Amino acid sequence: MALLNDLHWRYATKKMNGQVVPQDKLDYILEAARLAPSSSGLQQYKLIVISDRALLEKIRTIAYNQSQITECSHLLIWAAWDGYNEDRISERFNEMMDLRGLPHGTMDAYKNTILELYKNAGPDWQAHHAAKQSYISFGLAIAAAAEQKVDATPMEGFLADQLDELLSLRKDGYRSTVILPLGYREEAGDWLVNMKKFRLSKDEFITEMTLADAADIKGTVSLDLNDFAQK
Amino acid sequence: MALLNDLHWRYATKKMNGQVVPQDKLDYILEAARLAPSSSGLQQYKLIVISDRALLEKIRTIAYNQSQITECSHLLIWAAWDGYNEDRISERFNEMMDLRGLPHGTMDAYKNTILELYKNAGPDWQAHHAAKQSYISFGLAIAAAAEQKVDATPMEGFLADQLDELLSLRKDGYRSTVILPLGYREEAGDWLVNMKKFRLSKDEFITEMTLADAADIKGTVSLDLNDFAQK
Repeated sequence: MALLNDLHWRYATKKMNGQVVPQDKLDYILEAARLAPSSSGLQQYKLIVISDRALLEKIRTIAYNQSQITECSHLLIWAAWDGYNEDRISERFNEMMDLRGLPHGTMDAYKNTILELYKNAGPDWQAHHAAKQSYISFGLAIAAAAEQKVDATPMEGFLADQLDELLSLRKDGYRSTVILPLGYREEAGDWLVNMKKFRLSKDEFITEMTLADAADIKGTVSLDLNDFAQK
Repeated sequence: MALLNDLHWRYATKKMNGQVVPQDKLDYILEAARLAPSSSGLQQYKLIVISDRALLEKIRTIAYNQSQITECSHLLIWAAWDGYNEDRISERFNEMMDLRGLPHGTMDAYKNTILELYKNAGPDWQAHHAAKQSYISFGLAIAAAAEQKVDATPMEGFLADQLDELLSLRKDGYRSTVILPLGYREEAGDWLVNMKKFRLSKDEFITEMTLADAADIKGTVSLDLNDFAQK
């Protein structure tokens, strides 16, 4: 029950006390974020860590003045690819093949297939798709923090364009997606800490379906992903 | 080190053996997905569970023939809101206020603020934004499965429009976002099981930044999120 207990313990901390998160706990959380799965294993995002007080002050001004930005120990910022292209994908796949002792061309057919799909989906879709991968990592960092009894506040409330400019992310083809202050709760000033956690009931959240619930569809797909096995 | 060990243990299982995941382990994984945080606590998605073999066969035909779809014990499908509107958001916030013993109007100012932001961002952005929340839940389900030593395959390789049609998701304002077969690995037929996990190095993945790395920005934001505290 470790993970479920951790998920019950955590909440979106509204007030932090400035206490520093020890390096080993920080490293643990960063490692969980690093180990996250991503679409096609591309790891379309990176993680920025900030503990510099002066920089945090600047970020708070573009994060709706949320106090956790400056009360936290460290601020984590996920930044995802702004789009896909052959160079980016090839670089990742080549590194993967090097690690696995396989020829660089092993995944060429697969690479060309996803490049075609991504191209057809367009640049906006691509940026959203890369950003979505970062949310998996974000979720695992939240779980890791809770396991380490480190408080955290999942945040989307910041001006992403301004943050990208502040951290010069765009020139390298990245966009900030989501941020996570890490620290320790200051219960006295936290309006949320004693409120009940609100989640949909199991019946509302989960639907079991069988063939009897399904509609007829016509289309199928001829592409077979098994053809891309790295044999 | 529980979570990190689990994340090292897991991999995107390519071949499953059909063994059934016990109900208590399935429930544990679903519960982790349910407890995930989401933007503004809106829980903009639901989870569909399928173990009906005939329905899984149909899904495999629109999921690039990936064998795990029919070799798994249960298939989890996340389906997120296709957009935001006042009714949807009010329903969630009212339920939250009921749980917390607060008047329904407590979050009206906040609700109007996010509705305005969402409206300006447009319908495509809204669907992507709701979908992103489901990836947090997806990540936690992956972690929960690993903790329970249940194998899982994170998948985006399916025709979402066809799946929406098959499960009649659109009429209720939902779109399928990501799917996760749960089951047990069949090592003999799994090309990935013995390959090395590929992740960016810590140095590639993590960047520490200070004020010295930051650019000048002009804009700030006058809106103060602290004003929306539920006091």
